[in-house]
Amino acid sequence: MTLNLKNFLNPKIKMSKMGEFQDLQHIEGLKISAISADLYGDGRDDLSLFYFQEGANFAALYTTSKITSASINWNLKIKRHFVKALFVNTKNANTFTGIKGAQGLKEIAQSLSKALTLKLSQSPEGASEVVKITDLLFASTGVIGGDFPYLKIKNRIPELVKKLRTEQNKFIWFKAATAIMTTDTKPKLAYEECKIGNKLVKISGIAKGSGMIAPNMATMLSFIFTDANIPSVFLKAILRKVATTTFNSITVDGDTSTNDMVAIFATGKAKNSKIYNVLDPKLQDFEKALHRLALNLSKQIVVDGEGAKKFITIKVIGARSTTMAKNIGFSIANSPLFKTAIAGEDPNWGRIVMAIGKSGENIIPNKMQIKIGDYLVAEQNKTAKDYKESDIKEYMKWDAINIEVNLNIGNAFHTVYTCDFTNDYIDINADYRN
Amino acid sequence: MTLNLKNFLNPKIKMSKMGEFQDLQHIEGLKISAISADLYGDGRDDLSLFYFQEGANFAALYTTSKITSASINWNLKIKRHFVKALFVNTKNANTFTGIKGAQGLKEIAQSLSKALTLKLSQSPEGASEVVKITDLLFASTGVIGGDFPYLKIKNRIPELVKKLRTEQNKFIWFKAATAIMTTDTKPKLAYEECKIGNKLVKISGIAKGSGMIAPNMATMLSFIFTDANIPSVFLKAILRKVATTTFNSITVDGDTSTNDMVAIFATGKAKNSKIYNVLDPKLQDFEKALHRLALNLSKQIVVDGEGAKKFITIKVIGARSTTMAKNIGFSIANSPLFKTAIAGEDPNWGRIVMAIGKSGENIIPNKMQIKIGDYLVAEQNKTAKDYKESDIKEYMKWDAINIEVNLNIGNAFHTVYTCDFTNDYIDINADYRN
Repeated sequence: MTLNLKNFLNPKIKMSKMGEFQDLQHIEGLKISAISADLYGDGRDDLSLFYFQEGANFAALYTTSKITSASINWNLKIKRHFVKALFVNTKNANTFTGIKGAQGLKEIAQSLSKALTLKLSQSPEGASEVVKITDLLFASTGVIGGDFPYLKIKNRIPELVKKLRTEQNKFIWFKAATAIMTTDTKPKLAYEECKIGNKLVKISGIAKGSGMIAPNMATMLSFIFTDANIPSVFLKAILRKVATTTFNSITVDGDTSTNDMVAIFATGKAKNSKIYNVLDPKLQDFEKALHRLALNLSKQIVVDGEGAKKFITIKVIGARSTTMAKNIGFSIANSPLFKTAIAGEDPNWGRIVMAIGKSGENIIPNKMQIKIGDYLVAEQNKTAKDYKESDIKEYMKWDAINIEVNLNIGNAFHTVYTCDFTNDYIDINADYRN
Repeated sequence: MTLNLKNFLNPKIKMSKMGEFQDLQHIEGLKISAISADLYGDGRDDLSLFYFQEGANFAALYTTSKITSASINWNLKIKRHFVKALFVNTKNANTFTGIKGAQGLKEIAQSLSKALTLKLSQSPEGASEVVKITDLLFASTGVIGGDFPYLKIKNRIPELVKKLRTEQNKFIWFKAATAIMTTDTKPKLAYEECKIGNKLVKISGIAKGSGMIAPNMATMLSFIFTDANIPSVFLKAILRKVATTTFNSITVDGDTSTNDMVAIFATGKAKNSKIYNVLDPKLQDFEKALHRLALNLSKQIVVDGEGAKKFITIKVIGARSTTMAKNIGFSIANSPLFKTAIAGEDPNWGRIVMAIGKSGENIIPNKMQIKIGDYLVAEQNKTAKDYKESDIKEYMKWDAINIEVNLNIGNAFHTVYTCDFTNDYIDINADYRN
């Protein structure tokens, strides 16, 4: 079958670019579908469905915002650790959409449970089974406020379920990753493999980001699928640990969304031997693979930050504690003055000093060393001895900029990833809703 | 004497604009001088001196940054509450300028003390008096890092002292306010009068702002002069109280400078009756006048925020505590997404919801009411019933935008002032040092 992707992809995404992205592999036990409910008025895909016919263990981390979407409220009410499907819509965040938003979501859930049960009844294996609304998870992303277009969405559910594909190839992953986008200019995909015991385990993940990207959990949407057989409680522990140095270490603009969610689903189809303990050494390889995948997706989110032209890595070392290193890293990464200097390719390291100072952490200015790339620019409370502005100006032209701050007062460290602040960020966000 | 202001003003400032600014009055006991050391290479004024021949009581608030300039370090070491002069330079902040920066400042202090003592010896009243270096306060503003140009500055001190003018008229205040600017496009001046007992008291104040403007004290330079006779400890208490709702309630970009300073100097020449108690009702009128003046200067700083096109007032009411109201106000005011929406004249109130949510304050979403101007846009967790986007779009075109958030869970309130985030902010800061 030849897919005519042009018809249902986000019109901003060129299919010819697909070769640039990593190939994601099929995860057994997962079926995917993505279609358009024409919420944007341009025919792009805006609904996606991830269906586990035999269920999946799962763990999720949600936004720390005190105001959350109807979809997150729904998920938080589900106390179970075993789900059948994840449904995602873009365009409207279903936040501050009142009782109508919550009721609309319930209608969508009922409609989806009915359509999936019907589909199940048509397959010989699951003839008598039922997909309940409590088997379903939801994620929404887009404009906060306004009317949640639940009728338009609901009407497309039979078609969405009908189009579920058992086999995932690179096209279907690309399509799904594109269907969850808002102002993203590129879909975000990553794939990893590892072993649990002697079994090969696959991990496929997608994400969306762009604006409202800031620390403190799940600063975006990211959905990770694996065929590993791992209990939900252990998935949660591993995901939480991995997120600290990946999804929770990135920032585009310091703004935190009301809809953020990172979730991992495990179908168990890899049939690895049962895990009884989160410290089981058999899980080490999996944790590492998940970390690589999460870091990869996190970096893709930063690279595609609204208006971003440069990828910035800020490494804070020699700190008294990880918290100190993290606070200083984010104080730099979220400083508009620092970010605009990077955009202007200006080695104005005084703004790094400013951002360290305003963090409130008890550093010792005299001990601090600041590097831009491999160049030491400041130490002993002043410009470094061999500072040569022309060298650093040359370095600042690169697409990826490394900043290292050595506090020289301890052994803790943390790395934060961010992007520069350009005119395009302003342009994108000044008329986001139009 | 006719002043040829064109020769020594910041070339960006048009003298023809002087009529737009408030007339500041002469403060007896104060002499002012402002000249150029050509630190910018374009002849603009960059040094200013405020001299109290018979001394002045004073109080100052400094940046909360953990990294402070040599000038702030100098001032913090002065334990006395009675000073003779304030010296200000722009272009270089004298922060992270190493031992050379601190030594350079000391040389300037010695040179200034000598020049002022010499001037004093030439006047019959003060023939045997000496101006000590500990009688001097300093403020610097400009680029962090680099070399502090102390020689260039020091060489101009005799001329700066020679040009001290006893009588201040609107020209000299305008000149001084212009000499302390960096990226400001306008000088900031304000004047108030009040009574202490039966004596008329004058207050003249100047400020500079533009970038690195954020809460937590003294987010800029502001120098206030009065002829009131008030002990320094009471000045400090009043200044601290006034700053909470003025200088500490503004933000341009959330960045805090290493050099911020707000100071008030009182010459006592108004000869009001002595104040023995900070709660003396005679001080009420003074406190109110100082508050009006500080709020006026604070608003001028925001209006002239880098790239700002709109002045935004964010009033948070119905909060459980002032801290809660303040946190939420600043969470909105510092959100790049909110600020860009205002720049785009887009009534995207969802971003106000987002910013309230990310503040971490325990609000009750269902009780919240959000107003843009006089228009209620959201309540009961959804778009307000009579919401008419066309009305609000029209309102958003205004230069001054009012946002009101009623949390409806208490009686505390706080107002925060900020500006929008435009392409000009990026442009100004991408190549600030060039």
